[in-house]
Amino acid sequence: MKLDLKVMECVPNVSEGRDLGKVGELADLLRASPGISLLHVTSDADHNRSVFTCLGEPRALLSAATAFCARAFELIDMRQHTGCHPRMGAVDVVPFVPLGGTTMVEAVAVAHELGEAVGAMGVPVYFYEEAALQEERRNLADVRRGEYECLPERANGCGPVPDAGPHDFNPRSGACLIGARRPLIAFNVNLGTADVTVAQTIARTIRESSGGMPAVKALGVELKELGIVQVSMNLVDYRRTGMHQVLEAIRREAARFGVPVLESELIGLLPLEAVEDSLRHCLQMREFDSSRIIEAHLLRSSSSPESSR
Amino acid sequence: MKLDLKVMECVPNVSEGRDLGKVGELADLLRASPGISLLHVTSDADHNRSVFTCLGEPRALLSAATAFCARAFELIDMRQHTGCHPRMGAVDVVPFVPLGGTTMVEAVAVAHELGEAVGAMGVPVYFYEEAALQEERRNLADVRRGEYECLPERANGCGPVPDAGPHDFNPRSGACLIGARRPLIAFNVNLGTADVTVAQTIARTIRESSGGMPAVKALGVELKELGIVQVSMNLVDYRRTGMHQVLEAIRREAARFGVPVLESELIGLLPLEAVEDSLRHCLQMREFDSSRIIEAHLLRSSSSPESSR
Repeated sequence: MKLDLKVMECVPNVSEGRDLGKVGELADLLRASPGISLLHVTSDADHNRSVFTCLGEPRALLSAATAFCARAFELIDMRQHTGCHPRMGAVDVVPFVPLGGTTMVEAVAVAHELGEAVGAMGVPVYFYEEAALQEERRNLADVRRGEYECLPERANGCGPVPDAGPHDFNPRSGACLIGARRPLIAFNVNLGTADVTVAQTIARTIRESSGGMPAVKALGVELKELGIVQVSMNLVDYRRTGMHQVLEAIRREAARFGVPVLESELIGLLPLEAVEDSLRHCLQMREFDSSRIIEAHLLRSSSSPESSR
Repeated sequence: MKLDLKVMECVPNVSEGRDLGKVGELADLLRASPGISLLHVTSDADHNRSVFTCLGEPRALLSAATAFCARAFELIDMRQHTGCHPRMGAVDVVPFVPLGGTTMVEAVAVAHELGEAVGAMGVPVYFYEEAALQEERRNLADVRRGEYECLPERANGCGPVPDAGPHDFNPRSGACLIGARRPLIAFNVNLGTADVTVAQTIARTIRESSGGMPAVKALGVELKELGIVQVSMNLVDYRRTGMHQVLEAIRREAARFGVPVLESELIGLLPLEAVEDSLRHCLQMREFDSSRIIEAHLLRSSSSPESSR
């Protein structure tokens, strides 16, 4: 199922997850953008954040993302923003992910072009991961340290200077972090307790930065509206640590606190390979891959009749 | 992912799983058949059986299956056949499964046409499941009761008369069971013991016919070459009982004997919906479906560019 299409994924995250009118307007803008598909939108009131997953040809994605940022800066005011997810701006992060026949070099180029456009809108821009211009800005968590609240200090010369756009503090829009990266899985696990220290302790146990599982980033956060807590994760290399592996680790750790795992949640999309890995693991089925799924062949025979023998 | 294609699955099972030269020749015949795809072949030496999974337009499948049966009757001699899987003939079963835009009525019609062709080759034919002409022949296990060894008796007027073909015993080819059915999942679980009574006891516990899980058919068999045993199953309605559910039940029962589950195995293909169900269950992820898989959208945008916005 390797395809030679010239497509990328673009996954803007905005700091609004409560006013669904605003989120809907931004989604409509993406749906109306020529040459791209809006595949998924997730909004969370506790995170006060929404994630838009788009797919399309690189130039079409760049146009759509530029228009999206312009409108989001009009709709979202960071001076009123509270939420449990770390964030630095109204359009907090915009990663580009090369898929099919596109390369990371192309994704970095698109990220840098978007950065110039956003900078011209008066919003300070930092480039992260593969788009980083400085090695110490590769890790998103490092770039975002101090969050929105540290931006006035940065404007006063304390801390990193933006990679594009003005160096002044923009109180309404904050800063925008634009990157290029490999596909990751945004995976959350909800726990049946109101005690956020349980989620925080488990996050510390499993995340790579404190000696846990490789390629796992994890935070413990409180979902006040639901009265529960969550281990919120990015699995940045699902071949090294997959969903099934972190879920098992979290179940084991949560059991030590007498806390049940309520459910897991996927934000956005995931690669087919991750589905195959998890199924092989969960069903102890060494030989499974997607060629064993009937529909994979139906799609193939519908798209290329000459391959139907 | 519902498609309106006029396709069916056809899954002939032959009583040869040791002589891979013969199996390979039958596979090549299917690969060379116009208008169909051979998607998967499984051969097992202990079962002494091979399963061929084909997909194609109904008329093309009928031609391919007819040629396949003719060649299999030449290659396979039931007088020498031993194996742990129940069987009645050289081409033991040939089920047709309607997919996409085809109906069960069409699958039954193709099954009946193949039955006439196989009967004309001098092999007694029984129709089963949706293709059954008599209610008591719907269940494959009932039709196959007594196996190959009871066929001389049947020819002498004891037991059911064939639905097509000669009523005489055909010692070389046995009988052929031709059916039409919904998709099923052929799912086996291997256990780390040489004691076949463990697999037989577990099979009895989980199968519907002895009061176990709905829509589960199960047999305990010995895999002599591997020195282990297997619970060999058909999940005939995976929406009622899925792979994850039988696997959990088998793990629990096997633990009572102190026997480990070594691995599970899929024979042939399965529907995407079954993958989604198992993943939702294993990852406790209520919201998962295949629209969350990146490749599902890549395929779609490659096959119909107009839908890429």
